[in-house]
Amino acid sequence: MARWQPNAPERLAQAALELFAERGYENTTVIDIAQRAGLTKSTFFRHFQDKREVLFGGDTLSDLLAKAIAEAPGTATPLEAVAHALDAVGRHAFTPERREFSTRRRAVIAANPELQEREALKGLRLTARTTEALKRRGVPDLTARVAAELGALASEIAYARWSKTPDGDFGEAARLALTEVQAAAERASQRH
Amino acid sequence: MARWQPNAPERLAQAALELFAERGYENTTVIDIAQRAGLTKSTFFRHFQDKREVLFGGDTLSDLLAKAIAEAPGTATPLEAVAHALDAVGRHAFTPERREFSTRRRAVIAANPELQEREALKGLRLTARTTEALKRRGVPDLTARVAAELGALASEIAYARWSKTPDGDFGEAARLALTEVQAAAERASQRH
Repeated sequence: MARWQPNAPERLAQAALELFAERGYENTTVIDIAQRAGLTKSTFFRHFQDKREVLFGGDTLSDLLAKAIAEAPGTATPLEAVAHALDAVGRHAFTPERREFSTRRRAVIAANPELQEREALKGLRLTARTTEALKRRGVPDLTARVAAELGALASEIAYARWSKTPDGDFGEAARLALTEVQAAAERASQRH
Repeated sequence: MARWQPNAPERLAQAALELFAERGYENTTVIDIAQRAGLTKSTFFRHFQDKREVLFGGDTLSDLLAKAIAEAPGTATPLEAVAHALDAVGRHAFTPERREFSTRRRAVIAANPELQEREALKGLRLTARTTEALKRRGVPDLTARVAAELGALASEIAYARWSKTPDGDFGEAARLALTEVQAAAERASQRH
């Protein structure tokens, strides 16, 4: 066995990305993806519900966010808990080694309406999961929901900047974006 | 010809909803929907890109929002312009006569993952269209985006309440929800 071997979900995602780029999303099957990754179809379906899901990492990101929000200091405000979670995303998911993969992944999604729909739904679910995690800290329902939405927006802005800068840190980009989003929320009820 | 006859997109949406309820979304074709509505398949595709879209009214809602934001008083803050647009939605789309249709529509969407994905993507597009309309009023980019997101959240809350109350007004529900969402945005950066 190789000294370092990416785990099955990552190998499948890499293989899928290669195949989607080579022959298009429509012309790639789950069997093609499994074969390219040197794995079986049943291993594929153990990790992902369907072909689309392979680019969305199952529940990894959502579990990461929920765990980090639960572990944020007890004194943290709702948005500070969200910032804490986005730091964790930067440490474990949007790492420098993943930047290139992330950029190629975005290009594939942008070219395919079916993948865009899945991405939209995943976005809603991440926000719902973040909301739940904040509520479990005692944050009132609507405050939790709004903090999760502002966090999702900050995360999107940070991701766009991070994927374009060769050595930026996602967590830092997310903190900056959260500050900007908060300021914009205040300006939304003021004359411009 | 009947004295009152709903127009083609509405007839198709009604027919689709009936058929989805009777035999399921998967077992209904575009031809079935057109036939039930007394229309042709080509009329269907003149209004909707595919079977899913029939429950999402094409660009009607998005056009309505954009127009109302453009027409909001020049002195309106970004969130006041959004409230103005949600009033228009209440007058032209979420009218008392549409309440029952809306409730049945929600139930069909909730039961079908494909429809949920389309709904998620439509939501993102509505927010993008609202953001664009606010920017055209001179609202800075990020403020426009945040105001659109807060408006989308208020609209969702208002829709849920409106569809459950027999004689509520959507526009009023939306104004109340917007006030609540604004207050929650302030609390998101405070200790609870």
